[in-house]
Amino acid sequence: MNPSLIHELDLTISRIIEAPRSAVWNAWTDPASFEQWWVPAPAKCRVLEMDLRPGGAFTTQISEDGGEFARHINGCFLAVDHLERIVFTNSLVGGWRPAENPFMSAIITLADHPQGTEYVAHVMHKNNADRNMHEEMGFADGWGTVIAQLAALVER
Amino acid sequence: MNPSLIHELDLTISRIIEAPRSAVWNAWTDPASFEQWWVPAPAKCRVLEMDLRPGGAFTTQISEDGGEFARHINGCFLAVDHLERIVFTNSLVGGWRPAENPFMSAIITLADHPQGTEYVAHVMHKNNADRNMHEEMGFADGWGTVIAQLAALVER
Repeated sequence: MNPSLIHELDLTISRIIEAPRSAVWNAWTDPASFEQWWVPAPAKCRVLEMDLRPGGAFTTQISEDGGEFARHINGCFLAVDHLERIVFTNSLVGGWRPAENPFMSAIITLADHPQGTEYVAHVMHKNNADRNMHEEMGFADGWGTVIAQLAALVER
Repeated sequence: MNPSLIHELDLTISRIIEAPRSAVWNAWTDPASFEQWWVPAPAKCRVLEMDLRPGGAFTTQISEDGGEFARHINGCFLAVDHLERIVFTNSLVGGWRPAENPFMSAIITLADHPQGTEYVAHVMHKNNADRNMHEEMGFADGWGTVIAQLAALVER
């Protein structure tokens, strides 16, 4: 994992995953695979909606202890470019409606790399306070952990 | 003007414009034309950014009295379907970044009609309070006035 900042409002994390782009793409876009890596174990993820098109709903839940599931992401996909890019936000919900708890937009990019795939998650905030809060909430550990889980899943 | 509600969180206004869709589309997408109808006269509109693609910035200013220009829209286009549909929000700014003052998303649709073009503006809010505030701020008069101005411009 190699977090680096490229904007005072943003947080970025990247990792070389030793698997082809198609494998990484499939792990992202198949809900059953996505649930296996999107939250740090032993927490569990449940995908309620993953409508992969601009304006499509993206809704997930999390169970911290294997018990009750609580709201995690309630967002909207903004761009879906096959094998290349997924953009989503929690500032909108499905159908592009404004969200109750807007906070971030994320651009996920996949690029060919000599060792496999370069996976980059670039997360945008509205101001420096939100960015810093996200960093203090453990952005690097959290997103780093789940990218490692994604890598472990597809590098098998 | 024919405002009608189609969702408890939404506001909608539509009008038959006696001009071809291409003329209405051009009045929307050419900044010099757009400035002539987007705010109720005698207020003036200035387009700072109109980057008509998903993620593109949409930034306008308004001068109520012909003097100093103030912020009006600071938003982002979400979908741009030639001659058919424009979707934008002020919950995001250019590049899909979360916005400081999220409030609404709008879907503008153009459809063929025996008398010309059916123009529909469908505006979505995050909750009923925002929707009602927008209605009380004068949604029907405001959006109705500017659609009438758009019609007057293209029906010439």
